Amino acid sequence: MKYIQDLREGDIIRNEIYLCKTKQTLTGKSGKNYVSLILQDKTGTIDGKIWDFNNEIEQYEAMDFVHIDARVTSFQDALQLNISRIYKSREGEYYPEDYFPTTNKNVEEMYREIKNIIVAIKEPNLKALAEHFFINDTEFVKAFKKHSAAKSVHHGFMGGLLEHTLSVVRLCEYFSSTYPIINRDLLITAALFHDIGKMEELSSFPENDYTDDGQLLGHIFIGTNKVSNYINKAGKFPAKLANELLHCILAHHGELEYGSPKKPATIEAMALHHADNADAKLQTMTELLSSGDPKIEWMGYQRMFESNIMRSTKSKE
Amino acid sequence: MKYIQDLREGDIIRNEIYLCKTKQTLTGKSGKNYVSLILQDKTGTIDGKIWDFNNEIEQYEAMDFVHIDARVTSFQDALQLNISRIYKSREGEYYPEDYFPTTNKNVEEMYREIKNIIVAIKEPNLKALAEHFFINDTEFVKAFKKHSAAKSVHHGFMGGLLEHTLSVVRLCEYFSSTYPIINRDLLITAALFHDIGKMEELSSFPENDYTDDGQLLGHIFIGTNKVSNYINKAGKFPAKLANELLHCILAHHGELEYGSPKKPATIEAMALHHADNADAKLQTMTELLSSGDPKIEWMGYQRMFESNIMRSTKSKE
Amino acid sequence: MKYIQDLREGDIIRNEIYLCKTKQTLTGKSGKNYVSLILQDKTGTIDGKIWDFNNEIEQYEAMDFVHIDARVTSFQDALQLNISRIYKSREGEYYPEDYFPTTNKNVEEMYREIKNIIVAIKEPNLKALAEHFFINDTEFVKAFKKHSAAKSVHHGFMGGLLEHTLSVVRLCEYFSSTYPIINRDLLITAALFHDIGKMEELSSFPENDYTDDGQLLGHIFIGTNKVSNYINKAGKFPAKLANELLHCILAHHGELEYGSPKKPATIEAMALHHADNADAKLQTMTELLSSGDPKIEWMGYQRMFESNIMRSTKSKE
Amino acid sequence: MKYIQDLREGDIIRNEIYLCKTKQTLTGKSGKNYVSLILQDKTGTIDGKIWDFNNEIEQYEAMDFVHIDARVTSFQDALQLNISRIYKSREGEYYPEDYFPTTNKNVEEMYREIKNIIVAIKEPNLKALAEHFFINDTEFVKAFKKHSAAKSVHHGFMGGLLEHTLSVVRLCEYFSSTYPIINRDLLITAALFHDIGKMEELSSFPENDYTDDGQLLGHIFIGTNKVSNYINKAGKFPAKLANELLHCILAHHGELEYGSPKKPATIEAMALHHADNADAKLQTMTELLSSGDPKIEWMGYQRMFESNIMRSTKSKE
Amino acid sequence: MKYIQDLREGDIIRNEIYLCKTKQTLTGKSGKNYVSLILQDKTGTIDGKIWDFNNEIEQYEAMDFVHIDARVTSFQDALQLNISRIYKSREGEYYPEDYFPTTNKNVEEMYREIKNIIVAIKEPNLKALAEHFFINDTEFVKAFKKHSAAKSVHHGFMGGLLEHTLSVVRLCEYFSSTYPIINRDLLITAALFHDIGKMEELSSFPENDYTDDGQLLGHIFIGTNKVSNYINKAGKFPAKLANELLHCILAHHGELEYGSPKKPATIEAMALHHADNADAKLQTMTELLSSGDPKIEWMGYQRMFESNIMRSTKSKE
Amino acid sequence: MKYIQDLREGDIIRNEIYLCKTKQTLTGKSGKNYVSLILQDKTGTIDGKIWDFNNEIEQYEAMDFVHIDARVTSFQDALQLNISRIYKSREGEYYPEDYFPTTNKNVEEMYREIKNIIVAIKEPNLKALAEHFFINDTEFVKAFKKHSAAKSVHHGFMGGLLEHTLSVVRLCEYFSSTYPIINRDLLITAALFHDIGKMEELSSFPENDYTDDGQLLGHIFIGTNKVSNYINKAGKFPAKLANELLHCILAHHGELEYGSPKKPATIEAMALHHADNADAKLQTMTELLSSGDPKIEWMGYQRMFESNIMRSTKSKE
Repeated sequence: MKYIQDLREGDIIRNEIYLCKTKQTLTGKSGKNYVSLILQDKTGTIDGKIWDFNNEIEQYEAMDFVHIDARVTSFQDALQLNISRIYKSREGEYYPEDYFPTTNKNVEEMYREIKNIIVAIKEPNLKALAEHFFINDTEFVKAFKKHSAAKSVHHGFMGGLLEHTLSVVRLCEYFSSTYPIINRDLLITAALFHDIGKMEELSSFPENDYTDDGQLLGHIFIGTNKVSNYINKAGKFPAKLANELLHCILAHHGELEYGSPKKPATIEAMALHHADNADAKLQTMTELLSSGDPKIEWMGYQRMFESNIMRSTKSKE
Repeated sequence: MKYIQDLREGDIIRNEIYLCKTKQTLTGKSGKNYVSLILQDKTGTIDGKIWDFNNEIEQYEAMDFVHIDARVTSFQDALQLNISRIYKSREGEYYPEDYFPTTNKNVEEMYREIKNIIVAIKEPNLKALAEHFFINDTEFVKAFKKHSAAKSVHHGFMGGLLEHTLSVVRLCEYFSSTYPIINRDLLITAALFHDIGKMEELSSFPENDYTDDGQLLGHIFIGTNKVSNYINKAGKFPAKLANELLHCILAHHGELEYGSPKKPATIEAMALHHADNADAKLQTMTELLSSGDPKIEWMGYQRMFESNIMRSTKSKE
Repeated sequence: MKYIQDLREGDIIRNEIYLCKTKQTLTGKSGKNYVSLILQDKTGTIDGKIWDFNNEIEQYEAMDFVHIDARVTSFQDALQLNISRIYKSREGEYYPEDYFPTTNKNVEEMYREIKNIIVAIKEPNLKALAEHFFINDTEFVKAFKKHSAAKSVHHGFMGGLLEHTLSVVRLCEYFSSTYPIINRDLLITAALFHDIGKMEELSSFPENDYTDDGQLLGHIFIGTNKVSNYINKAGKFPAKLANELLHCILAHHGELEYGSPKKPATIEAMALHHADNADAKLQTMTELLSSGDPKIEWMGYQRMFESNIMRSTKSKE
Repeated sequence: MKYIQDLREGDIIRNEIYLCKTKQTLTGKSGKNYVSLILQDKTGTIDGKIWDFNNEIEQYEAMDFVHIDARVTSFQDALQLNISRIYKSREGEYYPEDYFPTTNKNVEEMYREIKNIIVAIKEPNLKALAEHFFINDTEFVKAFKKHSAAKSVHHGFMGGLLEHTLSVVRLCEYFSSTYPIINRDLLITAALFHDIGKMEELSSFPENDYTDDGQLLGHIFIGTNKVSNYINKAGKFPAKLANELLHCILAHHGELEYGSPKKPATIEAMALHHADNADAKLQTMTELLSSGDPKIEWMGYQRMFESNIMRSTKSKE
Repeated sequence: MKYIQDLREGDIIRNEIYLCKTKQTLTGKSGKNYVSLILQDKTGTIDGKIWDFNNEIEQYEAMDFVHIDARVTSFQDALQLNISRIYKSREGEYYPEDYFPTTNKNVEEMYREIKNIIVAIKEPNLKALAEHFFINDTEFVKAFKKHSAAKSVHHGFMGGLLEHTLSVVRLCEYFSSTYPIINRDLLITAALFHDIGKMEELSSFPENDYTDDGQLLGHIFIGTNKVSNYINKAGKFPAKLANELLHCILAHHGELEYGSPKKPATIEAMALHHADNADAKLQTMTELLSSGDPKIEWMGYQRMFESNIMRSTKSKE
Repeated sequence: MKYIQDLREGDIIRNEIYLCKTKQTLTGKSGKNYVSLILQDKTGTIDGKIWDFNNEIEQYEAMDFVHIDARVTSFQDALQLNISRIYKSREGEYYPEDYFPTTNKNVEEMYREIKNIIVAIKEPNLKALAEHFFINDTEFVKAFKKHSAAKSVHHGFMGGLLEHTLSVVRLCEYFSSTYPIINRDLLITAALFHDIGKMEELSSFPENDYTDDGQLLGHIFIGTNKVSNYINKAGKFPAKLANELLHCILAHHGELEYGSPKKPATIEAMALHHADNADAKLQTMTELLSSGDPKIEWMGYQRMFESNIMRSTKSKE
């Protein structure tokens, strides 16, 4: 694949696939109509122009992936593509991770680990619940694997929700073994479901932006409500256990002022909150420290941390 | 009815009905078993003793209402009932309001006003929703009429939830006419449902105490979840309107630190919050000012108001 | 009247009245002096130039209303008025509401309602106080009718103070009837006076900006002090009632951190605070929702509400 | 004078003067009436009984000072006075400082210093204002000298208001010389008046408790209002200077949440706030460290300082 | 060993060892002197009396462990020991854990793990620092093993500091492997030292109470200062690394209002804070849930968690 | 000296000394190398160009002071120096105060006052400590005299630390005489040392910016640590007095959220906090009011004071 950041004036591209971010039909000074696109991959965006409608050999819309033949030209100091052939690409012909920020971990491996963890749940109701969503509901699994965990902040990339969920689940495993009074099955299940509300709070890529539901209801309510609905239908779920599970999801932000309508009242809710918070903060730090010029030690004031952040001495290898 | 506070040593009572709050079988010093009860009406409580099990002419349990024949005796400076006959009362034989604090407004009149308000809702989905719960679901209606709106604070009495709901609905009507940009049907419906979560957060009388669900999930989640469930089943409810309604219920405490996971984002949510808050505060004030010695002007520091509260000059009639 | 926003190059205007916002005498490149004005009406502003001082046929100053004859010309992409005749207008020749943002309610009708409310006050001292300012003091009445209730936020227009005061008074009437323990006369009087300090905190139109007093003392002190002064002079005002009235005004912001030096300690002070707060918030919402493009649902983060605000579904007519 | 703490069973006292804190007529078991008093001096309180009404040789009431002849007896482990003669004392026959906590500084010397400071004020309007209250108004001066500055906390004793005021004035003098940009006359005058509202917020001794005005309006409003009234009457006081003075008094608590409706906006208001605050805290510390057993180093958690307070190493003399 | 809680009237004990908490010589009504002790083991305390000084066969003081022969008698409903023989015990003759609350983990095993972790540190300066204190300084090691990590709250028992430190170190290991950008050696070293200031903030058992240093300086300053002193002497420690290490210790409470004078500015400081916080909260929860009647689900409002805490459903074994 | 703000096109300067802020060697369009400097004095900065390397008659670096011969030319609307001769200046040839903002008080006089205050300390350990740093350690004294007390805010100029320290010491003297319970020697010593940590928190001029230590550890820890180190070495310093002194420095910000890890627990710590705070605020006000156009009364919202600040009426001379 030829990345947009590597295009140079005069290049000829054949059959490259880009995401068509926007599409407009405009009228030139001569009175003739033409099509103007913005094309995107994960390295940037470029304008595309189609002067002859015959070049559109098949229907496509904004937000479609498109096959393109074009020449790279320059106009007013910016590059653009003079497109001679364009048509819609089909799923499977491209890797979405070439077009959006994407987890650099292996999605299938992470998902396999999630499945193994579910297999190890002993309490049958919790296990059934986890299996229902994370194993049997293929639509859910497919969406879950691709979703981000944020619009920006931490894990704001494809697969980010899976990566964050796994990280929280693992830390919850750690807590379960360190503090044996914890009900492992309850905590692990709560960790699996704690952020699934984000699948409705945020639209999926390429948009990855707050939905109306998201802004009006928030992922904490949406997620708890979703699990509650399943439990209601499942019917025979023990009521006390159900409430404890819902409580964990509801309380996982830890403080009312962070959007949890209840403070943690059980050790599992407390543990989930600490696991979620630690991963959020340390991953944000990791993303921040991986950005910018590694020689500049002080990275400026970071609102989330209420501090100027410094790159510390690296470990010697 | 002979109220407990009016009983005097030597009185003979016949066929009086009291609530049996607790029931224990104990062993006396002589080795003989007897039954010890605590009996309650809205004026207080009294111990009851049954020395001869034959006096229990019919099965009854703690929290049952019971018919009692007894003589009032005195033991260690306290009165007690020497019970000669006891059996369970049936619903309809007593007025619950004689046994618990109860609204001093007319429950049926208040309910009629609620029904009339529902009749006036024009938006068909909102109307159907309100009718489903407040008119057609007779179990719900029966429970709603009897529930309190609090364990203590304001409206902590039978019928309190109905009284508070009506008061908030009326103030929302007022706001709808004053600020015409408000969607009246949406606001009125939200007001009707805003505290129904309390029907699960608090157990009904005689207990009127926080339930496990209540403590773990809170009435804001419970109520929003309940309405959400209905809407999911109803199916054809417009999604945007549904979210706006759920948002109103979710946001009605106005601030995250008061347990709303979202701040009001629409004028209806804002209006509902102000109506709820004003009724809560002014009713609490009313209950406070109606208590104690009317000659004592300063009522002491009240945590809810962060102030010493004063009885102000009365209106001249 | 020809509004500034409707002027086009080449238009000739005769005898139009505008507000002269600023006036400067400048020296042109040729060394000749000329006068440069900024003229304003409620639709916008335009530059005016007077090249010949003889065109000023009568004295006028900045902040005066002026009669103007002029031709609309264009200079560096902006329109300006080439003024051939200008003189000061007299009060009565123009409607101030054409030049500043103005309430869209009927001022005289609102004032009539205020008067009727005062007539209904029974307590003679409170009635005399209200009559003194709102009926007998014609200077006060005139200023009160024209004042705004804010520099920007809510009711920041001519007549805004009257509109807000009436709205709060009405809500206080509502509260008085709903919570009969409230001393209606006391509450209504407090509502009438609660924001009169704004008449000194903010200068009147065309300025409508914070005065020195306003910034140093604030409308809460200024208003309470004004009522206190009257009561001191009136002499026979019952001391307890006077303190309660002053307390209501002093405490109407509800919280120390919002500038009330005392928290509400009486039910009337509490009711006034809730009425003021509800009108402030719902009117701000109304003004916000009435602005901008009605098709854009989300209006962006609003600091006053600490939330992104959404236009909700409109009522069906 | 024989102090109450020094009375012993069997002592005979003649013509001692105590404060009669309370007075009740009671009926003994024999059916005979008697009078029961609580008598007080600065060292404590003692019960007094008058078995024969003839012993009351002259009318007196609770809160009067009384001459007493009595024998000290013991009843149920407590001492009491068997009073054989009692009559009201006249002002001048006793020193109030023997009966209430009183400044240990010389009142007249402190007052003389206040007067000298006023003499040194150059700005004629401020000087006239200060003279009006602190020199010419003898009623005011008399009350000012006797008042406390608090119910409990710091300077809660007779002469405390004078002592605190002088201390703040002196520190303001210090600030004026250190930061020459300060308007000394303005600051000194503001310091003189900053707490005069306490003369109405707190009743005078022997009560020294919050008045109704005090609770409803607070000393900040009361004091500012009083100065404002004088200025309004004085008439020719420069408006800007007047507002600056009132602002200093209004803002002297420094923060809205401490009851100042405005934050300091001038250097004089800022300086007054710091002087008031420093004296309040260091005097509270002084009173605290002067109490209790000097050998106990740690004095326990003090809410005002949010800390356990320690006696530090004493200076070597 | 015969525990104090198991003593019964009439028991004879021989050669039991208890901690002598207090020791006083008193004079009986007959004028004869006797010694009164309070004796303690981990199950409670009991009074001891020595009527004949000859029974003290060897010198001992309060806070010594003592060998005792005695008979258990009863006086005014409480048991006491009539001691016939008493002398001081020597270290090694008793297990301190029988007399104070003690970790239920194996101290030597925990310490071994600490040593292994230090061995794995690669950075030579950090390693030398850790070895200096935790391996070479035997006095330090001995004290460290016995110290508690709190007066009450979590880990308030002998060995508690070691247990908490190890728990935090382990969680930091976990974080280092999960977020590879972390400098493991730096984080592990910071974790080892983060609470060593508590060894001076709290006196050791049997007192285990705040010292003067502790109250005036706090363990955060004390610990950072101690490490800083070593580094200053060590001399060749890289300055940047030293500051980063000190920063971690200084910032480990995470927020200024929790006593850290700096917020975490590096990922290691952030990680240490989260590890410390999670262990503190989950261990407190563990200690709480291990107390009280396991059948009572709701444990009441816990200030540290700002919530009523519930025992959740136990895992099925 | 010819100040930079007074240079005009065409001026010839000879042997003027400026600070060389930056120095770069660049390549011109013709391919020839030249040197580009930024030169600074306290009135501003100017570009300097050296087209011929022979003009550099002696080695110099950025941050050196340099002698310059040059002609003032104009390039693209800005002045620059065409330098014909440049070499490094030696200390003593220039006055640093001509190049940086500098106290307008006499440094040597201020220092003399500091020395006199130290002479008056009676407690020998405190005196020795103060003498060690402020009299005997000439390096320390030299640096102390030149340091600023802030990057911007108050006393952000050469000599600012000395000026602020003296001001705080004086106010502490005042407090010591007003509240005799204060240990004067302890308080004065604490005042002397309270901000010495700034000498490492901020680099010295010309940089005057936060150092790494400063950002990671802060001046409160650094200063307390420095004094603690001396005391440890001094050895015989009484432990209680030492802790009290360290506590004063540690607690001088008064609140945890302002970076003090402990709240003041002694009257000396409290007094130091108030002295520091008052000087900080009143000096900031002084600097603010000395800036800008004296005719503009309102100076705009100032974050530090959370208020719009006004110039008040000046004293009449």
